[in-house]
Amino acid sequence: MTTTATVDRTAVRLDYDELAGFTAEVFTRRGLAPDRAEIAARALVHGDLTGVTSHGLANLTRLYLPLFDDKRADPAADLEIVADRGAALLVDAHDALGLWSARAAMDLALERAGTHGVGMVSLFNGTHFGCAGHFTAHAAEQGALGFLAGNCGGQRIIRPPGAAEALLGTNPFSIAAPAGPYPPYVLDMSTTVVPTGRVRAAARAGRSVPEGWLVDDAGRPVTDPTAFDRGEAHLQWLGGRPETGSYKGYALSLMVEALAALLPGAEMGPTSTKGRDDNIGFFVLAIAPGRLRDQGTFLQQSEELFGALLDAPALDPDSPVRYPGWPEAQHARAAREHGVPLAAPLFAELEAVAAQHSLTVPTPLGGTR
Amino acid sequence: MTTTATVDRTAVRLDYDELAGFTAEVFTRRGLAPDRAEIAARALVHGDLTGVTSHGLANLTRLYLPLFDDKRADPAADLEIVADRGAALLVDAHDALGLWSARAAMDLALERAGTHGVGMVSLFNGTHFGCAGHFTAHAAEQGALGFLAGNCGGQRIIRPPGAAEALLGTNPFSIAAPAGPYPPYVLDMSTTVVPTGRVRAAARAGRSVPEGWLVDDAGRPVTDPTAFDRGEAHLQWLGGRPETGSYKGYALSLMVEALAALLPGAEMGPTSTKGRDDNIGFFVLAIAPGRLRDQGTFLQQSEELFGALLDAPALDPDSPVRYPGWPEAQHARAAREHGVPLAAPLFAELEAVAAQHSLTVPTPLGGTR
Repeated sequence: MTTTATVDRTAVRLDYDELAGFTAEVFTRRGLAPDRAEIAARALVHGDLTGVTSHGLANLTRLYLPLFDDKRADPAADLEIVADRGAALLVDAHDALGLWSARAAMDLALERAGTHGVGMVSLFNGTHFGCAGHFTAHAAEQGALGFLAGNCGGQRIIRPPGAAEALLGTNPFSIAAPAGPYPPYVLDMSTTVVPTGRVRAAARAGRSVPEGWLVDDAGRPVTDPTAFDRGEAHLQWLGGRPETGSYKGYALSLMVEALAALLPGAEMGPTSTKGRDDNIGFFVLAIAPGRLRDQGTFLQQSEELFGALLDAPALDPDSPVRYPGWPEAQHARAAREHGVPLAAPLFAELEAVAAQHSLTVPTPLGGTR
Repeated sequence: MTTTATVDRTAVRLDYDELAGFTAEVFTRRGLAPDRAEIAARALVHGDLTGVTSHGLANLTRLYLPLFDDKRADPAADLEIVADRGAALLVDAHDALGLWSARAAMDLALERAGTHGVGMVSLFNGTHFGCAGHFTAHAAEQGALGFLAGNCGGQRIIRPPGAAEALLGTNPFSIAAPAGPYPPYVLDMSTTVVPTGRVRAAARAGRSVPEGWLVDDAGRPVTDPTAFDRGEAHLQWLGGRPETGSYKGYALSLMVEALAALLPGAEMGPTSTKGRDDNIGFFVLAIAPGRLRDQGTFLQQSEELFGALLDAPALDPDSPVRYPGWPEAQHARAAREHGVPLAAPLFAELEAVAAQHSLTVPTPLGGTR
């Protein structure tokens, strides 16, 4: 999982709804319709809300506002259904902001799953969607299973095993399922050991990274995260060494490339001539269990499955057994109650964004600054 | 990938069609209809054909014949469609042999994808299907994308991170896509560092296993594979240590548990009271690109994607860059031409099976014994 639950001691805390409202205002100023800006804002703040800070508001000035500045995202674009087979759709997103279009695509898939049992949206001309798990958790909250994968367009960051050149992106994907009364199960992962955002977050924080994340040209471990953006270190595939499964991380990255980009005809890393993250492809799948069997029984069995994991005997009684999605949900619950923690430098960035857009950042909640 | 390409020097080589024919005869004697026996035999021999010997004929006496002996597989069972929403089906496999039923389920999914763009079969009361990649490659050969996941019924082999008790199976899944004129891309993986079959194959061969596959109760590396079946060593999740992504292997295992078993209501490891591999659930998905866009363009782009990987500059010119499915296809090509290699002890097992069923094992091809 991409969780980075460590909270900077110099953090401020902001009310979640105020922070999301502010972020929506920024997107509205950039041309998104208010309802879409609200959806996009909650998708972006999801990272900070759940502790996945590598995919949260830190990317507002680094990724999303530059997409508008460079006209690489079109705030007014609608989704165009290019082919419609009932259960399966091909969609041209026309460079709409991924933070919104991924949710719109998941809603389309859910609607079709409600009729056909399964709904699939294959999308091209997408842009970055942030935390994939935000959109699949939305499906789980409706009692469905949701799957979302996105490639990185033509961006080339990772080398295939044995290759002297980077050809693929980190290619994230996510699946979520209801867990009865518990928080949904949410897998949200890059196909590398960690996503690039965690390497860069460590670089910003001046921290070294564990052995196993990066290697140099000769395959020796690198623990200085700044070496990555200098091109002196390469991100490793999930699985690490060949004998412990690096081929599986590579294979999963190709799964995302095939489902998300080859299927709809989006830009692909290995064949891209531009080498950047435009024309990203999404693969969105929703499954409605209640169209195949009794929904109540399904939800009861969901509760039993994930409850059995929570009840499993722990090696260390102070570290109970959990499942993916649980730690993020706990972080979100605390952040909704006590405010969303933002590192002081990130808060300063938001103040600058506010000034630039004639807006005001919400006032931090008392006592933690 | 589950490839174990090492060929025992004491191996014999058998003609592929003769070996598949013999295996089909064995299944016919156990009550399968001849056309189903042929399908099941090719699914099983696929392991030996492609070099994935951990999932090949070695499992005939260890897994499949005992399923018949113990009446845990019903050779005469048909697939029963319990719910039919056009694109999505719920199927009761009534303990039919998984080596056949996985293919029948994939054919059903392909048929529905041909109409709806996507076809999904959610199946319960399944039994072991062997190499998942055999069935997804079949979809790729038809120009489709195929996905197959199977849980392990109630079998509990692997501990969730932090748990003192095993609750989940190795939970394999596979996806395949066409690669134009090249062999299909085929991911076929367990969600652990390696499947149990590779640990047991090392134990049979008297070989130690690399650090990273097994750990003892205290988390120390174990390299003696025999410790696994003595309960003194635990198989590790893909990702290895927590800081290099073991949570992702665990999360992928739960993806399979949710898709393959929770969705259809099959037996699940964490909630099983029986603790064994009965009532396995399958999740089968087929996608027909040609229902969404021009199939010829899709195949052309498939060729470009996988061709670009094959053409990538290699770190070592003697080790060209490949993609999952390629090494297995090369192994299969050689085995079709020169015979399927079988280790001498496995050949002896087949001779015993032949005697037991009043059959004759095909004569090894000359010169290699």
